[in-house]
Amino acid sequence: MKPSTHVLPRYRIAVVGTGAVGGFYGAKLAYYGREVHFLIRSEEERAAVRRFGLRVKSREGNFRVAKTHVHASTDTVGPCDLVLIALKATANDALPDLLAPLLRPDTILLTLQNGLGNEEFLAERYGPERVLGGLCFVCLNKTAPGVIEHLGQGAISLGEYAGYPLPRMHDIAWEFKRCGVNARVVADLAEARWRKLVWNIPFNGLTVLATSLRPPGEPPASTADLLRDPSLSYLARRLADEVIAAARSLGLDVPSDFADLQFKRTAEMGAYLPSTVLDFAAGRPMELEAIWGEPYRRAFNAGAEVGRMETLYYLLRGLRR
Amino acid sequence: MKPSTHVLPRYRIAVVGTGAVGGFYGAKLAYYGREVHFLIRSEEERAAVRRFGLRVKSREGNFRVAKTHVHASTDTVGPCDLVLIALKATANDALPDLLAPLLRPDTILLTLQNGLGNEEFLAERYGPERVLGGLCFVCLNKTAPGVIEHLGQGAISLGEYAGYPLPRMHDIAWEFKRCGVNARVVADLAEARWRKLVWNIPFNGLTVLATSLRPPGEPPASTADLLRDPSLSYLARRLADEVIAAARSLGLDVPSDFADLQFKRTAEMGAYLPSTVLDFAAGRPMELEAIWGEPYRRAFNAGAEVGRMETLYYLLRGLRR
Repeated sequence: MKPSTHVLPRYRIAVVGTGAVGGFYGAKLAYYGREVHFLIRSEEERAAVRRFGLRVKSREGNFRVAKTHVHASTDTVGPCDLVLIALKATANDALPDLLAPLLRPDTILLTLQNGLGNEEFLAERYGPERVLGGLCFVCLNKTAPGVIEHLGQGAISLGEYAGYPLPRMHDIAWEFKRCGVNARVVADLAEARWRKLVWNIPFNGLTVLATSLRPPGEPPASTADLLRDPSLSYLARRLADEVIAAARSLGLDVPSDFADLQFKRTAEMGAYLPSTVLDFAAGRPMELEAIWGEPYRRAFNAGAEVGRMETLYYLLRGLRR
Repeated sequence: MKPSTHVLPRYRIAVVGTGAVGGFYGAKLAYYGREVHFLIRSEEERAAVRRFGLRVKSREGNFRVAKTHVHASTDTVGPCDLVLIALKATANDALPDLLAPLLRPDTILLTLQNGLGNEEFLAERYGPERVLGGLCFVCLNKTAPGVIEHLGQGAISLGEYAGYPLPRMHDIAWEFKRCGVNARVVADLAEARWRKLVWNIPFNGLTVLATSLRPPGEPPASTADLLRDPSLSYLARRLADEVIAAARSLGLDVPSDFADLQFKRTAEMGAYLPSTVLDFAAGRPMELEAIWGEPYRRAFNAGAEVGRMETLYYLLRGLRR
């Protein structure tokens, strides 16, 4: 057997938005020797990362990226081959300025953001052929500046925004795999995004509503709190089934019983706090349009019955603190 | 022209549940000389009514029923011709014991309670032919023991539970009219109940959810707060339209544009607090099943699309304090 003739691409990578997701996947790549430049806009966090490194605490083994490239602005990063976009979708307005210094004509933009509309945002400005989407199936919390707690899972599904996967997409997936990330390439990114929404729409939304009821100072409501309440648990399941029906009405292949598996896994996850709940509890903006508004509008416009999604969306919009 | 030969019935009337609604309509009847017996279970309130009378504050003119029949138990009332039932629907379990001393075989039971299921509760136990339903279109708050504030409106629609209106129903409506209450007889009680739900389901429900978000100590959210918020106002309208469609799917004659008038009137009402919000804010049980559960189940079982009603019902059920 011939040795592999595959030539490793030597990606220069920027992580725009070093939150829990950007920090975790960027740290994986950096830990395994890739050149990763982190945009960290908090001075306190830059100082912490410069002093202590970027730290990941995980039951699968803690690790630390001791020396890495930390930037206050993308101006000092310069052109890259691959940009991981992990800002909150609510901060997309800042993206054009942040991305400008990073772009060559062939720079690949991989958005790891939640929900719908982020690939479109990039495709309109930079061309659809440069845009990839990544879905992160991972439980993460940032617990301190430069410290990310990895609570479970970690897989990433990668898809082309426009059309079927190209070779460079498989290369990128392999780069993740070589760095210890369970990456896979999906043929239909829209379908993958809707499959993820089957979980995010009910669980992120209802934990926020349940949290909104609690007196200030009490801990936010977790997925376990939700599943423990028969009314909210039933509603979560009805919402999940409505999202599946919506996806199917958009022509996407999501099995009717897809929620069974999701609920089984959620019960096994324990008391997880979705990122939206943490945002809400901390007074940060929620990814309202990406997770609830845009999916609702697309399904509604396709003629699907989306009364539950509609109610949840407008309640979250109206009940924002 | 001959003088009327109509002989006034001399009703002996009991009011079971002297809250804002029972107190207001009972006070009207008593003020105009009818024999009204009030069940008042709070000792403090009985003392206040005995000392100061039952007082109604209203822009249409304050009035006071100085001497009236106040009872701690229905045992001391004895058999009546007409019983006005104005307990919260959540207290229906107490009704059989409360009603027993009041009943002759022909005693008429008029429930002024909200929502669906109350006539059925009475009809199952006492026979459908004795049961009337009354819908109160009135803004009332009980502001102190024995003091009812009348904020607006006041009409009452009366209907037979079983079949078309009988003469005794018209007699009762006339008794209300002679006592200054704008009473009318409706041919279809179910239709009238659903028309009222077009308002109660969204406005009672969403003001509760909006209130649930506010920190303890802040005033509850009013209908005006709801209408001021573009998201919640839109959602209220979508819910109202869904309730209309549900009623129509049950074969009831509610016009498709019925919500237009409701929303116009609500805007004119100002900052009204529906009774459910006051109950919720005070930690009292809400009429969850009568206003949200039973209508949702009936429409769902009839095959109507009720995703919005379903979401609201399960949220209210799950978010109860």
